[in-house]
Amino acid sequence: MTKPQIGRMLVVGLGLIGGSLAMAARRWDLVGEVWAVNRSRPSLDFALQQGIVDRVAQDAETLLPELGPGDVVVIGVPVLAVGPLLEQLARSLSPEVTVTDVGSTKGWLVQEAQRVWGKLPEALVPSHPIAGSEKSGVQAAHSDLFVDHRVIITPTGYESRRHRECVEELWKGVGARIDLMSPEHHDEILGATSHLPHVLAFVLVDLLASMDEKREVLKYAAGGFRDFTRIASSDPLMWRDIMIANRAAISESIDRFEQHLDELKDALASESEVRLMKMFQRAQATRNAFVRQSEKNRAGE
Amino acid sequence: MTKPQIGRMLVVGLGLIGGSLAMAARRWDLVGEVWAVNRSRPSLDFALQQGIVDRVAQDAETLLPELGPGDVVVIGVPVLAVGPLLEQLARSLSPEVTVTDVGSTKGWLVQEAQRVWGKLPEALVPSHPIAGSEKSGVQAAHSDLFVDHRVIITPTGYESRRHRECVEELWKGVGARIDLMSPEHHDEILGATSHLPHVLAFVLVDLLASMDEKREVLKYAAGGFRDFTRIASSDPLMWRDIMIANRAAISESIDRFEQHLDELKDALASESEVRLMKMFQRAQATRNAFVRQSEKNRAGE
Repeated sequence: MTKPQIGRMLVVGLGLIGGSLAMAARRWDLVGEVWAVNRSRPSLDFALQQGIVDRVAQDAETLLPELGPGDVVVIGVPVLAVGPLLEQLARSLSPEVTVTDVGSTKGWLVQEAQRVWGKLPEALVPSHPIAGSEKSGVQAAHSDLFVDHRVIITPTGYESRRHRECVEELWKGVGARIDLMSPEHHDEILGATSHLPHVLAFVLVDLLASMDEKREVLKYAAGGFRDFTRIASSDPLMWRDIMIANRAAISESIDRFEQHLDELKDALASESEVRLMKMFQRAQATRNAFVRQSEKNRAGE
Repeated sequence: MTKPQIGRMLVVGLGLIGGSLAMAARRWDLVGEVWAVNRSRPSLDFALQQGIVDRVAQDAETLLPELGPGDVVVIGVPVLAVGPLLEQLARSLSPEVTVTDVGSTKGWLVQEAQRVWGKLPEALVPSHPIAGSEKSGVQAAHSDLFVDHRVIITPTGYESRRHRECVEELWKGVGARIDLMSPEHHDEILGATSHLPHVLAFVLVDLLASMDEKREVLKYAAGGFRDFTRIASSDPLMWRDIMIANRAAISESIDRFEQHLDELKDALASESEVRLMKMFQRAQATRNAFVRQSEKNRAGE
C-alpha cells in the first residue's frame, strides 16, 4: 500500500464520517497529526480522550494559518455550512493545502467554491464516501467504516494532479475503492439511491406519527418497518441541508417516484393482478441483483 | 405453560410462516401430529426430510375428511387462494375442527367465509402473527420465529369459546403474545405499518430498475438502501394478493402518504429550512420511540 505523504490532516466537523476518517488515518499511519475543529466541545473532548485527534479548536480560524504544503483539510460540516467555511479557507488557508470533503451532495460545494474564490481552486478535490449509518457523531465513529466501501471523487476539472493524488491515496489508504464522476452526475445518482429513500422514510414515519392510532401503529410495526425506517433516525440537520443543497435532483427523483406510484395505484384501482405481479417481480429481481452485487463488492471482486 | 390439546395440526400452504409454526408446535410438543398440504412438491419433500411434518399431500381433499374434534387447520396460502380453500373446507371438513390462518389481511378472509358458509362458522378464529422476513418458503422456517412476537387475533364475534381458546393456546405455546382487535381495525393498522412500506419499497426499486443508469445506481446504493428495500425482496405473489385483498385500506394509506409527501415537496420548493427540520426531527423522534418500544417488547415488559 502506498502511503500518502500527509503532514497534518484537519477535519472540520467531527461527526461520524470525519471522526472515522481521523481514526482510520491514524490507525493506518497515513498522517503525521490529526487536528479537528468542531462547534460543540463535547465531541472534541471525546476525541481527545480517545486519542483520535492531537489538537482541537472550536473555530478553524486559529488553526488554518498554520497549515501548509503537504497538509489536508477535510470538510465534514453539514452542507449549508460549507459556504461560510470556504470563505474562511479563502481568507486564511494557504492555496498549497489540499481541500476535500465528505458530503453527500457535490454540486453545492463546487458552486460555493466558484462563488467564494471566483474560480475553482487547484487544491479542491471533492469526495463522497458511500458509507455511513443512521447513527451520528464521533462517538459512533470507527476506523474500518470505509473498508471495501466506495468513495466517489468528483474532480472539478481545475484540480492539480498533486492534490488529486493526495485525496485518492488518502481514501485508498483507509481501505476504500475510488470511482470518478462529475458532480452533477453524482448528485443525480445519489438523489435516487440515497436522498429519495430518506425522503420516503422520513415521510412515512411522519405520517404514522400523525395517525390517531399512533401508539398502536408503532406497537404492531414489525421488523420490516424497523429496517425500512432505519434511515429516518438519521441526523435531521444534516438531512435538511442535503435536501436544500440537492433540491433539484431530489425533486426530480420524487416526481419520478410519484409516476411509478401512480402506476401501482392504477393497477390497484383496476385490480390488475397481472400488472401488480409484474411490478413486484421486477422489484424483487432488481433488489436481489443489488444484494448479489454488494456481496460481490464485499468479496473484493 | 398450558399446552393445548391439539391432535392433528394441518398446515395448508407450507411457507415460511406455516413451516415455522409446524416446527415450533412440534418442538414445544403442542400437537400430536403435523400434516401439511402444499401445491409444490419440493417443499413437502423438504419438510418430510427435515422431520417438520408427519404426513403430506398436494391437495387438501384427501386429508380433510380424516380430521375431527381437537384437530386444527391452519390456512397459510396466499390470500386470494383463501376463497377456494374455504369452499373445500365447507365441503369436506367437520365443523368441529378449529380453523385459523396466518394471513396479513383479515377482512378478506372473513368476507370469504361469510360468502362460502352463508354465515360465520363457530370454528373460525382468524389470526396474524406479526413476524416474517423477506425470505420465503419452508426452507427459511425456524421454530423460534414467533417467540416474543405479537399475534393479532381478530375474533369474528361468532366463534365459540373452545375454538378461540385453542387458537390462543397454540400461539402462546409457540412463544407469541396475543392481542385482539376487529378484522377492519387490523387491516387499517397493517395497511399503514406493513402494506404501505411494502408499496413504497417495491415502487422505489421498480423506479431504480427503470433508470438508464441502472447498473451504476445499484453500484452506489449503500447500506441504507439495502435495509430500506429489504422488503422489496418479499414474495411477489403473496404481496400481489395482499394488495388486492386489502385494496381499500392500502389505497387510503397511499393517499395519506401522498399528502405528507406534498408537505415535504412544498417545504422543499419554498426552501423552508424550518419546515424540513421540524418534519425530520418529528420523524427521528418517532422512529427512535419505536425502536425503544420494540426493545422493551423484546425484554418482555
